[in-house]
Amino acid sequence: MKERVFIANLALPKAGLVKLTWGNVSEIDRDLGVIVIKPSGVPYSKMKAEDMVVTDLDGKLLEEGMKASSDLSTHVILYKAFKDIGSVVHTHSKYAVMWAQAGRGLPAYGTTHADTFYGSVPCTRQLTAEEVNRAYEIETGHVIVETFQEQKLDPLAVPGVLVYGHGPFTWGANPQKAVENSIVLDEIAEMALQTEGINSKIKPIPQYLLDKHYFRKHGKNAYYGQ
Amino acid sequence: MKERVFIANLALPKAGLVKLTWGNVSEIDRDLGVIVIKPSGVPYSKMKAEDMVVTDLDGKLLEEGMKASSDLSTHVILYKAFKDIGSVVHTHSKYAVMWAQAGRGLPAYGTTHADTFYGSVPCTRQLTAEEVNRAYEIETGHVIVETFQEQKLDPLAVPGVLVYGHGPFTWGANPQKAVENSIVLDEIAEMALQTEGINSKIKPIPQYLLDKHYFRKHGKNAYYGQ
Amino acid sequence: MKERVFIANLALPKAGLVKLTWGNVSEIDRDLGVIVIKPSGVPYSKMKAEDMVVTDLDGKLLEEGMKASSDLSTHVILYKAFKDIGSVVHTHSKYAVMWAQAGRGLPAYGTTHADTFYGSVPCTRQLTAEEVNRAYEIETGHVIVETFQEQKLDPLAVPGVLVYGHGPFTWGANPQKAVENSIVLDEIAEMALQTEGINSKIKPIPQYLLDKHYFRKHGKNAYYGQ
Amino acid sequence: MKERVFIANLALPKAGLVKLTWGNVSEIDRDLGVIVIKPSGVPYSKMKAEDMVVTDLDGKLLEEGMKASSDLSTHVILYKAFKDIGSVVHTHSKYAVMWAQAGRGLPAYGTTHADTFYGSVPCTRQLTAEEVNRAYEIETGHVIVETFQEQKLDPLAVPGVLVYGHGPFTWGANPQKAVENSIVLDEIAEMALQTEGINSKIKPIPQYLLDKHYFRKHGKNAYYGQ
Repeated sequence: MKERVFIANLALPKAGLVKLTWGNVSEIDRDLGVIVIKPSGVPYSKMKAEDMVVTDLDGKLLEEGMKASSDLSTHVILYKAFKDIGSVVHTHSKYAVMWAQAGRGLPAYGTTHADTFYGSVPCTRQLTAEEVNRAYEIETGHVIVETFQEQKLDPLAVPGVLVYGHGPFTWGANPQKAVENSIVLDEIAEMALQTEGINSKIKPIPQYLLDKHYFRKHGKNAYYGQ
Repeated sequence: MKERVFIANLALPKAGLVKLTWGNVSEIDRDLGVIVIKPSGVPYSKMKAEDMVVTDLDGKLLEEGMKASSDLSTHVILYKAFKDIGSVVHTHSKYAVMWAQAGRGLPAYGTTHADTFYGSVPCTRQLTAEEVNRAYEIETGHVIVETFQEQKLDPLAVPGVLVYGHGPFTWGANPQKAVENSIVLDEIAEMALQTEGINSKIKPIPQYLLDKHYFRKHGKNAYYGQ
Repeated sequence: MKERVFIANLALPKAGLVKLTWGNVSEIDRDLGVIVIKPSGVPYSKMKAEDMVVTDLDGKLLEEGMKASSDLSTHVILYKAFKDIGSVVHTHSKYAVMWAQAGRGLPAYGTTHADTFYGSVPCTRQLTAEEVNRAYEIETGHVIVETFQEQKLDPLAVPGVLVYGHGPFTWGANPQKAVENSIVLDEIAEMALQTEGINSKIKPIPQYLLDKHYFRKHGKNAYYGQ
Repeated sequence: MKERVFIANLALPKAGLVKLTWGNVSEIDRDLGVIVIKPSGVPYSKMKAEDMVVTDLDGKLLEEGMKASSDLSTHVILYKAFKDIGSVVHTHSKYAVMWAQAGRGLPAYGTTHADTFYGSVPCTRQLTAEEVNRAYEIETGHVIVETFQEQKLDPLAVPGVLVYGHGPFTWGANPQKAVENSIVLDEIAEMALQTEGINSKIKPIPQYLLDKHYFRKHGKNAYYGQ
């Protein structure tokens, strides 16, 4: 499991999604009652599989060793609220960050988006001063959950979010899938940005095309892949 | 032929035109009565030449093995309508997708465009709900053919199209040429986007310059190359 | 020390921040009374550690050998005014240059910015003809110092600046840190550019979020890293 | 000389300035009375030093072998008009092409520009139908020369041009220098594009700063480099 989380973390700089020590991947095993996550602030080039940090389901360290990613608490909140996800990824990938900084959800402008995200990727509201000062990383988790509840979104169908003024979190059944969702999110964020540049009056694709593409790849009638 | 299709498929991620498993190349041999196409959803790093899928000219599988790309039906329609093409390529290359998502054809703003595409690259109309639900991939082929018929375009002179809300298809005499046309299409899509950013009133190049560049490289009076 | 400055100089083209011979890194050892800086106009591929130029704290050469970077005088002024910095980096990294050429300071639009720069990165005023003609590189240093004094900025909390019509300078405790600040500056410059493209009315993040992110990584209550 | 021209041609795709077979470099030896230029339409990966084409000063082939680049006539005209240049480069590098397609000269927005180009890089007028049909490549050369004459520009001080609707030509004392000028031109074209995006009212840098940077690197009072 440490090996898997380690490899998924390394996939982020390889895909151009993180610079320096930004970004982190975690995985949960609900049966074993453990979360494995990247250590805080360790350069990717020096990180080893055994440096991965192991915690219980509340984020308490289960082993001596390195400090966990400072974003651990956000991951914990997401695992508690989204019962069916197995991995969480956080990056500062640049195009997703641009939308998060602009405070706008990412509209579904095309089928590249619809293949992975069933509708627009929401942007949270801004955290209040009170929330930031009290328990920043926990409240970041809460505001993500609140966004999905208020907009009645299924976290499996929309496996990612933009945190206002900050950046993206994505998730998935396992680390590989969660990292793939980060790659897709950044790509469609770039595409959407320039789609608006080419045609400022463009509308999201119609629901029937969104349905077609999403359900071509997901659910019991999927017919994409082997 | 499998080897050729395999190599052409690998050329797509190498040229930066596809991420993950997006994109597919097929080749047709009209004399043999076969189409060879990439299998559906197989990572490029694990794909082998023998995984290429062989079908008849209606897209029916001729061998046991992997499932064909889900876009096979679109390729079949294009081969039936465009009698002289030997290969079809589909990608989600980002700049071409931006124009497809914006619902605009790509104007011929310069000679880089004119060297390969004799006039603007058209964007199809949006498919109706009825079309999408009935036979999505077939109707995608039909709307491309309809676009070429209505705009009286020669598919050999304009070897590519943008499908509204989706992305580009290109074609050519063989897989190598069809892939090259995908590379050019994405490059000129990026150039056109920023050309409009630098001068919002810019017009396409005049017909005589389009003629000069296109016929420098194509047709019986071509004098480019060896 | 030469080795360290050499390695930091090589890190610039590796990170995509400089082309050709643009850019330079220096380091100061105030106890030894020396500054080590890149030689002027030497290609990165041919440069060796022993080519690094050693000067005293006024920028006077202490060894026979190559000429120092033409920007040496700017580095000297910065070391004299900013007593706690140990290294200075100058690049023409493209996104930072775009803001410098546009004559605008870089607003703190998100936490990626706040993790490294405590508030907006200022842009200097334009140098006068008199200043440019008298002592260009020295006056470039002076206008940076003037900018920090007038805006009452702490050079340790805002470890970089944009020189109007020219480009970025960053600094840090050591060459590695100063180079990292150059990498971050270019990344946030790109993010900010498109943030404004996505939402032309966006405001910088609130002070409490800036505080939270900056002090998560800096100062006595920092809890990021090991 | 063939070796030098060969290496300079290979430098273009390596620097990301050309795709496929676009772009060409030539060198002139006025004493020997020869021009050496890239052959037409040969893939960079298959090209060898001995494939370089040798012509006299009028562009007439002096050896059996491959056909010269179709842009040879443009190079010849430039060599005849600009007596002191030793090499010409043509690319379709994307940012320079964007400005050429937009029909605008590139303003000197910063010192990165001023270090290489002493003032804005001009864009030619559009060629007429008559000119294109009569002798396209020759007239491309003529319109470049006309632009420099009408704007009273020194081709050594402004070693490049944008041909309307087409793309950039640069030149220099030798192939290495001419290629470097192509690299710089594309970089400053990208910077200028976004400089206008960040500040739509920005003006070119003042003459005194242009003078300072240009003459820091060029002419008898230059003090940059070893």
